[in-house]
Amino acid sequence: MTAAARERTVEADGPRVAGGGVDSEVRCARAALLRVAEPPAPAVLRLIDRRGPVDAWQRIRAGAVDDDVLSATAARLAGRSAGELGDLVAADLASAAAVGARLVVPEDPEWPAAAVSALRTRGPRAAGQRADPVALWVRGGSLSALPSDGITVVGSRASTPYGQRLATDLGHRVAAAGLTVVSGAAFGIDAAAHRGALAAAVPGTATVAVLACGIDQAYPVAHRELIEAVAAAGAVVSEYPPGTRPARHRFLVRNRLIAALGAGTVVVEAGRRSGTLSTACEAAELHRLVMALPGPVTSALSVGCHRLIADGAALLVTGADDVLSLLRPDRSAAQDGLWSIDEDRPTDGLDPEALRVYDALDPRRARTVADVAEDSGVPAPAVLSALGLLEVRALAARHGGGTWRRAG
Amino acid sequence: MTAAARERTVEADGPRVAGGGVDSEVRCARAALLRVAEPPAPAVLRLIDRRGPVDAWQRIRAGAVDDDVLSATAARLAGRSAGELGDLVAADLASAAAVGARLVVPEDPEWPAAAVSALRTRGPRAAGQRADPVALWVRGGSLSALPSDGITVVGSRASTPYGQRLATDLGHRVAAAGLTVVSGAAFGIDAAAHRGALAAAVPGTATVAVLACGIDQAYPVAHRELIEAVAAAGAVVSEYPPGTRPARHRFLVRNRLIAALGAGTVVVEAGRRSGTLSTACEAAELHRLVMALPGPVTSALSVGCHRLIADGAALLVTGADDVLSLLRPDRSAAQDGLWSIDEDRPTDGLDPEALRVYDALDPRRARTVADVAEDSGVPAPAVLSALGLLEVRALAARHGGGTWRRAG
Repeated sequence: MTAAARERTVEADGPRVAGGGVDSEVRCARAALLRVAEPPAPAVLRLIDRRGPVDAWQRIRAGAVDDDVLSATAARLAGRSAGELGDLVAADLASAAAVGARLVVPEDPEWPAAAVSALRTRGPRAAGQRADPVALWVRGGSLSALPSDGITVVGSRASTPYGQRLATDLGHRVAAAGLTVVSGAAFGIDAAAHRGALAAAVPGTATVAVLACGIDQAYPVAHRELIEAVAAAGAVVSEYPPGTRPARHRFLVRNRLIAALGAGTVVVEAGRRSGTLSTACEAAELHRLVMALPGPVTSALSVGCHRLIADGAALLVTGADDVLSLLRPDRSAAQDGLWSIDEDRPTDGLDPEALRVYDALDPRRARTVADVAEDSGVPAPAVLSALGLLEVRALAARHGGGTWRRAG
Repeated sequence: MTAAARERTVEADGPRVAGGGVDSEVRCARAALLRVAEPPAPAVLRLIDRRGPVDAWQRIRAGAVDDDVLSATAARLAGRSAGELGDLVAADLASAAAVGARLVVPEDPEWPAAAVSALRTRGPRAAGQRADPVALWVRGGSLSALPSDGITVVGSRASTPYGQRLATDLGHRVAAAGLTVVSGAAFGIDAAAHRGALAAAVPGTATVAVLACGIDQAYPVAHRELIEAVAAAGAVVSEYPPGTRPARHRFLVRNRLIAALGAGTVVVEAGRRSGTLSTACEAAELHRLVMALPGPVTSALSVGCHRLIADGAALLVTGADDVLSLLRPDRSAAQDGLWSIDEDRPTDGLDPEALRVYDALDPRRARTVADVAEDSGVPAPAVLSALGLLEVRALAARHGGGTWRRAG
């Protein structure tokens, strides 16, 4: 490819080409691979590892590949000529550029390598099958600070006002703490988390939305404005070629990216079969911290959260403080132990005998030491010393004839 | 003591003497020990182990004991003569008999040995200090089936309608399952649990109330009728001599018995500092299963429950089903795994490729196999076999010209 030709192609990438240093042949090859291979495409990824993206794409285009790669790409190659395929890729780059999106590739400095590296070797449920993206279409800021600065917030679309309030507050607090809220732009909890983060109006990447459709699509349509706002204050991400329709399996595939881009995943509300549970499961597979907010046991939208916690698949958190203290111990207030007693009762810190004496005193009627000893079961001498202690703390008052009354 | 004398003393024990086989001298000695030693009284228990209750009481009465026993009993011996002490004990037995209560002693067949044995050697927080009762005043049925058939239900006095509904339902379901609800007769969760159990109207011991005052006292006074009903359908228990006033330290001491009498303890609602947490802590010390019901994170009355769960001190349960499945696996329905999918969606069980093909079909417009292959990324031959499968499950319908539409 001549320098002039490369120049043209780079222009075709649109005004916001990331890492211009990357050979546009590489960028075009990865755009083409995203076009022909439905993610996740482990066979294609292995071929890229062996041959590099440009040679891998040439071999796929020529049909000179093993069956596993062939079956992952044949449907969309569909006997198209090299020219037709080139046009498709140019059209994808143009459609993306038209909405201010760029193709971020692993060769770019802004590639979120740390986030997606976990997707190369997932846990037992994913049978270790790698599922890192071939490239990512991105609108907005860089993802390179993820996952260390990201917190994934997910939940049901059919959320309750309770869940929406918690998600909004959580998104707001997380963004205000300088971290990035990662979610999916869906109705319900996703939208509430994004909106809370946007409301924080902080510099930097407040929130990231990962789509299950093309970067040029708005799904749900009603969230077109929300998605625009997320692109402006953070980033919108998709691994699907422009024009791709959302489909159920794509939401499940997309969820692994949502889980990978956060250091931890918080499930705010989830029904018994919520797709949200798949994100929580992916997060666990990727060794991310999984957290869940409880709710009323009478709420169907809390069943999934309660099961995650009960089964030890998620830690119980009650809000942003818990989440931040788990993921950012330095940024959160120290927590006192479960059985610790805060010093906000007058009798706090009294030894058991003194407490027994205090309990035996009557606020209304002065009692003799003998009566107090009898009632408390504390020997008279010990009662006297306890009364002295209580008097100092203004919890007991002397009366005539060596009698005492409860004070304080 | 002559048989005639013993006969008289047995009569003095009142009409409902338990285990008449037990020498009433033993029963009187233990009644006396309860009268003079505020529980828990480890030193007195050790003396009883060494000398037996009758000799132990005689030595204490004579002041011929070590300092630790002396300081635990001196306050109430208070220079009383043997006759005065004997009158006190006779009065206790008479007061108890007047309310239909009996003194159950370890020598009785009905003594809940299994329940209190855990109190002989408690965990690290209790410094292993033994705290088993010297004897128990009991109204109503036997406690001998506890703790194996008992479930302790506790919670805050200042409970919410949410917590009260859960406690009532839990108490009802536990009693209906033939188990015994153990609680404390307090306002709020305790009362709701007892009432739920009473409403089950089952034979046997529906519910047990452990009091922090004398067996002849009703505390709170407003619960006099509730306590009567518990005595009639179950049992009311106290280790305090008749006439003893409730005192805060006695509630804490009483809580160890509530925890010991159940195989597990369920915390329904608890504020950040609820005394209920001491019962949960005791239950853990006694190696009982500790469970907690979550609630709205916005509710101050759920803070204690959430902390117990978050700190791993309690298992999250969402109701009677969870509690029974944990404590009575045989009596509860099998639970499906967290990620299990119930077969109640037409597409359940479809392999990923078939699901991708199904998603690519349009309910309104018939599509060609080529279009479906392009859209789903599944090769045409695989699309055809998937369509066959979908057709069998009535999820796809053939149309003219080899086109297909989504059905079902």
